[in-house]
Amino acid sequence: MSKTQYFPKIDRSHKKDFKPISVPERLLLGPGPSNSHPDVLRAIAQPPIGHLDPYYIDLMGEVQDLLRYVWQTDNRLTLPMSGTGSSAMEATFANCIEAGEKVLVAINGYFGNRMADMASRYRAEVVTFEKEWGEAFSLAEVEEALATHRPVILAMVHAETSTGVCQPMDGIGDLCRKYDCLLLLDTVTSLGGVPLFLDKWKIDLAYSCSQKGLSCPPGLGPFTMGPRAEAKLSNRAGKVPNWYLDVSLLNQYWGSDRVYHHTAPVNMNFGMREALRLLAEEGIENAWERHRKNAYKLWNGLERLGLVLHVPEDLRLPTLTTVVIPDGVNGKAFSSHLLKKYGVEIGGGLGSLAGKVWRIGLMGYNATPENVEYLLNLFDSELPSFRETLSSSA
Amino acid sequence: MSKTQYFPKIDRSHKKDFKPISVPERLLLGPGPSNSHPDVLRAIAQPPIGHLDPYYIDLMGEVQDLLRYVWQTDNRLTLPMSGTGSSAMEATFANCIEAGEKVLVAINGYFGNRMADMASRYRAEVVTFEKEWGEAFSLAEVEEALATHRPVILAMVHAETSTGVCQPMDGIGDLCRKYDCLLLLDTVTSLGGVPLFLDKWKIDLAYSCSQKGLSCPPGLGPFTMGPRAEAKLSNRAGKVPNWYLDVSLLNQYWGSDRVYHHTAPVNMNFGMREALRLLAEEGIENAWERHRKNAYKLWNGLERLGLVLHVPEDLRLPTLTTVVIPDGVNGKAFSSHLLKKYGVEIGGGLGSLAGKVWRIGLMGYNATPENVEYLLNLFDSELPSFRETLSSSA
Repeated sequence: MSKTQYFPKIDRSHKKDFKPISVPERLLLGPGPSNSHPDVLRAIAQPPIGHLDPYYIDLMGEVQDLLRYVWQTDNRLTLPMSGTGSSAMEATFANCIEAGEKVLVAINGYFGNRMADMASRYRAEVVTFEKEWGEAFSLAEVEEALATHRPVILAMVHAETSTGVCQPMDGIGDLCRKYDCLLLLDTVTSLGGVPLFLDKWKIDLAYSCSQKGLSCPPGLGPFTMGPRAEAKLSNRAGKVPNWYLDVSLLNQYWGSDRVYHHTAPVNMNFGMREALRLLAEEGIENAWERHRKNAYKLWNGLERLGLVLHVPEDLRLPTLTTVVIPDGVNGKAFSSHLLKKYGVEIGGGLGSLAGKVWRIGLMGYNATPENVEYLLNLFDSELPSFRETLSSSA
Repeated sequence: MSKTQYFPKIDRSHKKDFKPISVPERLLLGPGPSNSHPDVLRAIAQPPIGHLDPYYIDLMGEVQDLLRYVWQTDNRLTLPMSGTGSSAMEATFANCIEAGEKVLVAINGYFGNRMADMASRYRAEVVTFEKEWGEAFSLAEVEEALATHRPVILAMVHAETSTGVCQPMDGIGDLCRKYDCLLLLDTVTSLGGVPLFLDKWKIDLAYSCSQKGLSCPPGLGPFTMGPRAEAKLSNRAGKVPNWYLDVSLLNQYWGSDRVYHHTAPVNMNFGMREALRLLAEEGIENAWERHRKNAYKLWNGLERLGLVLHVPEDLRLPTLTTVVIPDGVNGKAFSSHLLKKYGVEIGGGLGSLAGKVWRIGLMGYNATPENVEYLLNLFDSELPSFRETLSSSA
């Protein structure tokens, strides 16, 4: 050790002299992240404690219980993955697929495609059935696909962030029992903002994120696994082909054994605990109703301005609205203008909707009438010049 | 959507009524996490911004450049994984192993075993060579193992958090070139605290964590990959069997294309940026020297109290010291006492050192003479009663 002070010459080519951080203020009304609740930000700024500290061990249990509440599930294996929502998505596949098994993915947007890609990396035989981006699947379509493919897992997206569609779930759980497959549901853009009844709907596997309906910064991926999925995990022939996301190991830490797995992101979990506490204080049904009311207010206001919404009303997500970009308007120029001049972020389209829609999020802490009014006023005052510029330059 | 207001009865069995969060104050002098710098905590509490916001895109570049500086590397593919250090460990294997390839792991502690487990999950043929927990490998031992096994990757731990050993790296990079294999190095407990010259040492793959020498909360896993490892990744036959950690996808976001991959943990990266800025302001060589001086102060003080250190001085890590628990003392009872009465965390032993050593960390923000003096005073005043209690009850 004493020798280490005689080290070679330091290379300073990457030693940049940056100023202290100064983050611009943003109102995040895009597809996520959404703004965090100020109490959540205060919580994540608490000095860290050890991941095996008795206080932290108690906090883990609180997070798990409140996640069960907001997801309406009794699942024992309910915990936040130490990564973003995509890591929790990956955890569902990593733990429940064995090589060569057939996974059926319902694709009606960007995130269905992502699920298909992920499942293939776990050596599943991936089969898909598709709808246009902006439509949902009917029960008959789901049954036909199940009967045709006989998969071990059906993967669906409850709330397609790329399209703004809310997939009706009534009856799909029963179909999956009938065809003896697990039902995996992406609830990234629904948890905390859209009615969600995991157990009543017979969902076997689900995941979400921290930065939308939960009003927390991005960085944690809530994950849950019901008894049928747990049984499949227990019966695996080999180890889960992903150490970090291996639920059999994670449960030794999150369960009663408290065996060290990895050093938990304790500060993010301080924030998650506080975010869930605030949601429980509000009452999950009241949060859903708040999202519903503000979404209606937004939809009516946009339509009053002559704008067209991409998704039929009965399938619309309250958390994420896709607005058709009017003919001739440069959608990207308009959203850049809102960001630069007003610090307001709205999203553009992904995949087949790129350049065709804006995506407006009203999620968690941001689902308020004040934000809706502010955004409608901006559309009212700023959009005309984007139309005019265009027609005058044409 | 209008139908969703008529939802089933809410199950309130998991709706617990918790008080607002109140985190106990801790001085974290165990194996990590260490305390964060207050400026870093202020940074992570800034309201989030979008992961494609121009400000955030600039910040990503700043984080990458400063990571190159503290690691002393020019590697293009240098970025923090959106998970803890273990996720970055997994990324090294996931990206650079193809099924059936031989991976040689040097095991002289807990984290060598973890690397062997992870590599096997990526279907490597894992071979190992071992030393006692508390020893390091000689160049001759490394060469013998390379010559015998002819692996595609040699994986070693620079700073074994379980034992307090710093592996001397001189000459190992040259051996790996001679035997045509990649050199993968765990720098979890060395980055920011122990001299580390990735490029001069010819390291091809390395990873670390945020919560030790960088003075940030846990939650990010710095990762870097040199040109030889990058070439191996480019020549893969199939996709990386891990979507979340796929560097070919991640580089489209972190590189110049800025293609959306996953929603970045923006607040953690605010903290990482500030932590690295502070480290660059101090100067990496000054940070190393601060760790060295305070470690010596700790070692001398512990020896003056009659305690024995587990690792010979020339192999000792300045960041993590293993102290032999004196005969008859219940090590766990003593560390629990420090935590409960003084809010001071020190660690216990892992694996073959469980019950045999305490682990004391002086990392990043916590590597100060004041902390050393405070801890030495606690050992001086509190440890005798743990000896006495024992002898009186014997």
